[in-house]
Amino acid sequence: MTGSSLAIDVSKVSGDQRVSKADSVAVEEPLEIQLSYPAAEGAAAKSISITMRTPGDDANLAVGFLYTEAIIQSAEQVASVEHCGAAADDTGLRNIICVSLNSDVDVDLGRLQRHFYTTSSCGVCGKASLEALRVTGLASLSDKTVTFSRSVIVGMPDKLAAEQQVFTKTGGLHAAAVFNQAGEILFVKEDVGRHNAVDKVIGALLLDAKLPANELGLMVSGRASFELMQKTLVAGIPLLAAVSAPSSLAVQLANEFDMTLIGFLRSERFNIYVGEQRVTE
Amino acid sequence: MTGSSLAIDVSKVSGDQRVSKADSVAVEEPLEIQLSYPAAEGAAAKSISITMRTPGDDANLAVGFLYTEAIIQSAEQVASVEHCGAAADDTGLRNIICVSLNSDVDVDLGRLQRHFYTTSSCGVCGKASLEALRVTGLASLSDKTVTFSRSVIVGMPDKLAAEQQVFTKTGGLHAAAVFNQAGEILFVKEDVGRHNAVDKVIGALLLDAKLPANELGLMVSGRASFELMQKTLVAGIPLLAAVSAPSSLAVQLANEFDMTLIGFLRSERFNIYVGEQRVTE
Repeated sequence: MTGSSLAIDVSKVSGDQRVSKADSVAVEEPLEIQLSYPAAEGAAAKSISITMRTPGDDANLAVGFLYTEAIIQSAEQVASVEHCGAAADDTGLRNIICVSLNSDVDVDLGRLQRHFYTTSSCGVCGKASLEALRVTGLASLSDKTVTFSRSVIVGMPDKLAAEQQVFTKTGGLHAAAVFNQAGEILFVKEDVGRHNAVDKVIGALLLDAKLPANELGLMVSGRASFELMQKTLVAGIPLLAAVSAPSSLAVQLANEFDMTLIGFLRSERFNIYVGEQRVTE
Repeated sequence: MTGSSLAIDVSKVSGDQRVSKADSVAVEEPLEIQLSYPAAEGAAAKSISITMRTPGDDANLAVGFLYTEAIIQSAEQVASVEHCGAAADDTGLRNIICVSLNSDVDVDLGRLQRHFYTTSSCGVCGKASLEALRVTGLASLSDKTVTFSRSVIVGMPDKLAAEQQVFTKTGGLHAAAVFNQAGEILFVKEDVGRHNAVDKVIGALLLDAKLPANELGLMVSGRASFELMQKTLVAGIPLLAAVSAPSSLAVQLANEFDMTLIGFLRSERFNIYVGEQRVTE
């Protein structure tokens, strides 16, 4: 089970027929991310997150998570990323990954606490969540003027589907992909969790020295939530296109930071919720 | 914006047509859950969770969350559930909810830490996650012998769709519903987060003194993950049916606790991954 899918037997019911067949399901296993940095107490690795993920792209997931959570800002800060600890099962699946940072990195784990939904002006509210992003130093993407043609955008779902290898087998994974103006996919990643799929893509961009990705668009298989929009913003990506609906707070975030937000991208149609100027004929 | 949907203008693109139209998106706003219990320091309310949710069913969400996280075990332990703090905006949307517990409730907030993915036998792994559920006192549902007919099961997606009022408007919400052997829906709840939709349903069952719900089935609009299967188990519900795919760990959990897990329930067909004995002709 080191792979991304697991073979199982299922009972397929259709009308009064019930047939036992071999099938595949997407693998979901916990991943613990440990961070090692010189200023840590005794320089020991510190466990900072456990997430349920689909194995197979753990290094990208770990550094993507650290980047979108604002713990690291560049690939140069990372000394090494490798699995540690014992194998979890006899196939060698490993569920702990250690990220070691270079000695000059100033780590603020307080950022992980995420107590940033409250302000004095509105108490706990969506607006406070947006203001908190400004406080972490994120700026509007209004000067990122890259455009994407309508044909590139409507072509993305089929291209994404063609690259979703594990989804094809299991029907059980979210996907995320970054693409350029020509409609070429640079990275596509899959995971049982859609936030993980996006972290994997952003981690791959980081390790390939392509961040901030001001000239790229991000496509996701599901809905567009505040969390996904926030990760897109942190990566400097000015356009997010989702197969399904956006939430109110995703729309508000896109407005606040001058991003382009597309939803219901399917069957040659889509809705532009914010930022039409980046979509050309 | 006290409601579950927000009216906005979108630009609808279809072929070379681009038309501005009024539309609706599902509301996503943070909810802070505060817990007040006699043993708390100074008896002050303690903030225990902030989740992004769709407003409108906060009391059910709060108690459902506390129940599925094993902080409370019955409705009798709850003295009151009410919004507190100032309104977040001028429409009166309130994003803090306070749950007060009775004086005899023994609260163990350590359960919220969720450091239960590790055992000495396998390190961090799915198996440890399952074993941890046993440690919290959860038992197999093998003696829960309720059955559901095939026609009740294939009829659920249409019934669920008919009840999804906000989804119909926005296309942007997950849904969860509990149903009985006759195929009647007892509660249906919607949310931008699928775990929230399930917590809302379980909270409604709790406040209606219907837990454990050993005679009911749970239907969800999306995929079946470990987390959703765990919540189903905690509520004593022996059958979970999902519109989409289950993950490997959801299948393993269903096996371990003798539950029934159905996936890809659509167009009169479905797959039974575990526990066929609960599905009759």
